[in-house]
Amino acid sequence: MGVGRDRASLDAAERVGAIDRGETDLLAAAAEADLIVICTPISRIARDASAALAVADRDCVITDVGSVKASIVEEVEGSSAAGGRFVGSHPIAGSEREGIANARSDLFAGRPAAITPTDRTDPGVLDRVLEFWRRLGARTLVMSPSEHDRLAAFISHLPHIVAGALASAAPEAALPLAGASFRDGVRVASSPVELWTEIFLANGAKILESLAEFRSRLDQLSRAIENQDPEGIRRWWLAAQNQTGRNGLLFKSDPFG
Amino acid sequence: MGVGRDRASLDAAERVGAIDRGETDLLAAAAEADLIVICTPISRIARDASAALAVADRDCVITDVGSVKASIVEEVEGSSAAGGRFVGSHPIAGSEREGIANARSDLFAGRPAAITPTDRTDPGVLDRVLEFWRRLGARTLVMSPSEHDRLAAFISHLPHIVAGALASAAPEAALPLAGASFRDGVRVASSPVELWTEIFLANGAKILESLAEFRSRLDQLSRAIENQDPEGIRRWWLAAQNQTGRNGLLFKSDPFG
Repeated sequence: MGVGRDRASLDAAERVGAIDRGETDLLAAAAEADLIVICTPISRIARDASAALAVADRDCVITDVGSVKASIVEEVEGSSAAGGRFVGSHPIAGSEREGIANARSDLFAGRPAAITPTDRTDPGVLDRVLEFWRRLGARTLVMSPSEHDRLAAFISHLPHIVAGALASAAPEAALPLAGASFRDGVRVASSPVELWTEIFLANGAKILESLAEFRSRLDQLSRAIENQDPEGIRRWWLAAQNQTGRNGLLFKSDPFG
Repeated sequence: MGVGRDRASLDAAERVGAIDRGETDLLAAAAEADLIVICTPISRIARDASAALAVADRDCVITDVGSVKASIVEEVEGSSAAGGRFVGSHPIAGSEREGIANARSDLFAGRPAAITPTDRTDPGVLDRVLEFWRRLGARTLVMSPSEHDRLAAFISHLPHIVAGALASAAPEAALPLAGASFRDGVRVASSPVELWTEIFLANGAKILESLAEFRSRLDQLSRAIENQDPEGIRRWWLAAQNQTGRNGLLFKSDPFG
């Protein structure tokens, strides 16, 4: 069952088979559900999850897909006596494109999904949420909400910031020269503005920490360039390659794509 | 005719049909050529171009493919009476992969190629070099060597620096969470270390200028995050999207790739 405000979007989702039935009333739908996945904007997730928990069956389990976890989990656990039936999730999939037209059934296949229980989480609830993501093909990773936010800052939020800064720093005259390195570098700068404004606000402290670390790497290279120091530049490059090459993250995309 | 030091590479290039004949003696080969394209490391291009010019037929035209232009063009024009027969090129294609095994015949199709004449360039030479790149399918762009270096810093050198800094800033524990944004963001960090060390040394001043501009964009966003200022964050995102969206640079790659 898909719940949303916009009837036309629900109808479109029904037509392509993404949902069996569209509903506009969250509470009516929540009362019927076994598992609820809240996909509203980050600033609303905790409120919507708490509202759903208040009407849901006592065996119903609730999770979400927000890109930030600590503030959401804290608010749900604090505001609802049933907070132990909520466990946060963050599937790392999707793209800069929005809407049902860009949906695909294998979206989560092989993708990481962070699941963030706390001391208050019911172990049976955690198992059911893990099982849900695994059946969609995701690789589940269990960690605390705060550890999630620290790692997500480096692996997702910072790459988005860097893409935006690369895009807006480039002078107009440089754009006809753009090759794959620039195009890949700025791709996610086209991600939805509202979504990312909320992420930057909700994970501000961790994002600023990741930015400080990133800047210190830029500082190292700047100094090596200023000093015309080939050995320093070489060391800097090799450190980057060790980090990602060792982890099999490189050489996976079509270099000419 | 392909000229190189390594007989095995030349043989492999002959086998796949990338060249008709492999030679190890630049000067012997240059004496027979109508058009010479120097593809040696940046620190050697000017020397090799000048050596080739000294033995080449007077109708022979020479260009190169170096990612930095001002220092190379200045050195060739200064060191050789025949410097007017050299014009610099920078085709923006290729990838982080090296060697004949990664070659493809349509490498330059639809790709930008900057051609950088000076007051000393013979107009007929410029025409022949433009024609050469166009026949390979490249979109040629004519500009001064120094303008090229300024723009290349923003559109190519900076994206490589940012990829390296993103890769090495990320803590090991974050890597299993990597999605498409991180993978795209770090892809070119696997580019050849020696090539990029030379580029950073040869275009240091322009690269430091582009880094300063890039950092000022990071500063703007950091301040908006510190101030928990949604309007400032929104404006920052929109500036990035205007720059690239307007120029058709986004939405071209497979978002799930």
